[in-house]
Amino acid sequence: MKIARFFDGKMTRWGIVEDNELLEMEWEEYMITKYPTTGSTWRLSEVELLPPCTPSKIIGIGLNYCSHAQEVNMELPQEPIIFMKPTTAVIGSAADIIIPARCKRVDYEAELGVVIGRKAKNVAAGEANNYICGYTCANDVTARDYQQKNGQWTYSKSFDTFAPIGPWIETELNIKEAGIKGILNNEVVQKSSFSDLIFSVEELLEYISCCMTLLPGDVIMTGTPSGIGPLKDGDLFTVSIEGIGELTNRAVLEEDK
Amino acid sequence: MKIARFFDGKMTRWGIVEDNELLEMEWEEYMITKYPTTGSTWRLSEVELLPPCTPSKIIGIGLNYCSHAQEVNMELPQEPIIFMKPTTAVIGSAADIIIPARCKRVDYEAELGVVIGRKAKNVAAGEANNYICGYTCANDVTARDYQQKNGQWTYSKSFDTFAPIGPWIETELNIKEAGIKGILNNEVVQKSSFSDLIFSVEELLEYISCCMTLLPGDVIMTGTPSGIGPLKDGDLFTVSIEGIGELTNRAVLEEDK
Repeated sequence: MKIARFFDGKMTRWGIVEDNELLEMEWEEYMITKYPTTGSTWRLSEVELLPPCTPSKIIGIGLNYCSHAQEVNMELPQEPIIFMKPTTAVIGSAADIIIPARCKRVDYEAELGVVIGRKAKNVAAGEANNYICGYTCANDVTARDYQQKNGQWTYSKSFDTFAPIGPWIETELNIKEAGIKGILNNEVVQKSSFSDLIFSVEELLEYISCCMTLLPGDVIMTGTPSGIGPLKDGDLFTVSIEGIGELTNRAVLEEDK
Repeated sequence: MKIARFFDGKMTRWGIVEDNELLEMEWEEYMITKYPTTGSTWRLSEVELLPPCTPSKIIGIGLNYCSHAQEVNMELPQEPIIFMKPTTAVIGSAADIIIPARCKRVDYEAELGVVIGRKAKNVAAGEANNYICGYTCANDVTARDYQQKNGQWTYSKSFDTFAPIGPWIETELNIKEAGIKGILNNEVVQKSSFSDLIFSVEELLEYISCCMTLLPGDVIMTGTPSGIGPLKDGDLFTVSIEGIGELTNRAVLEEDK
């Protein structure tokens, strides 16, 4: 099932995506087996899709594909590399990525986003799936020049609009059989299967939740495969995940806004 | 004025601290000039002080005192080093710091906390004070062994209970004339004046807000002076700032809980 959050021109609503329609639903919590619908429907084309969840925190994972570690000449990590992105960076599929005037190079990074469904602390990998609401497409936008400036990555990944997620949450994705593509202006520039993840989603959830409590709606961005590159003014970048759909955002130079 | 958030045994309230009393107030927003009181009062000794604000994010600053950069053999930064701590790590002065079983060494770090009062984006240093609600004591608790493991500091600083703040917000502190002490079981182990900060509060607010939007209640932990060291089971650690007061937390080994 695909769960979307959208703005109908007047208010924010939740809906189940079926073909080109949204069946409005009463959203109560992230992990319920039955999502009651209200009977109202919208066409997908007539609403604005919002970020599909409202995280209290976003956890990013560095170097989680061999191919990407190689392209940036970094050693494979012994444990997951964790960083955070602020919630003020979150945008949905309808919004633009703003390239700040102060950044020399801003890169796309296509990633699988994990949406937490239930408060999670000290969760064993084998139990992880009981705490996951579903999956979404994510773009871990990064100011590459700032990332290299001073060991810590936070600043480079925290500019407003640097955390596109969407277009919706897929609650039934089999990630073992799925793959991801990053598409820049119709050209496939990133492509990988999730079987190539160095640390699996279950291992990440154990590692992170042994440190901090994860809350419903929190998002884990699981790392990007090789093929990273810069965004230029007017570029369209799409994160495409089999079984979920496509998250497309336009990049716009700050000066042009 | 000192603004506290507290639990009276039944519900969460806000109050102005005067001597040993709390004058309950109607808290509406962080930056107002007049805080109307309700007429109800509590003794400080009969309530549980909570974290004095509810941040959407916590920004930490690394190596912001020369003395601390020297003791950890790091070069002075050319630009502020930014990291984040999750809001799930926040505790007030009544709660214990839990030392996780998996951490070999967990350190205290006494710091000045800046509480944002107004939505701040692209704020010039000269205007920074218009966006600050006040100041509080903060402890940037850090698992030193995890910090050194993989370049990124987030994991080491993000365990639940690793962000004590409090005991209240002081809205009228003159930080240029104030100083900070870290006190471990009655022994002063950290001591500095805020004039020793490499990047001033105003410069930090400009640097951070040129990247991300700061929201009311967000906290900036401005870095720790020299004298860091480990917490052991049963230790009491106090962050004492002239003009604010004292934030004291007990450290407790996870196994003992």
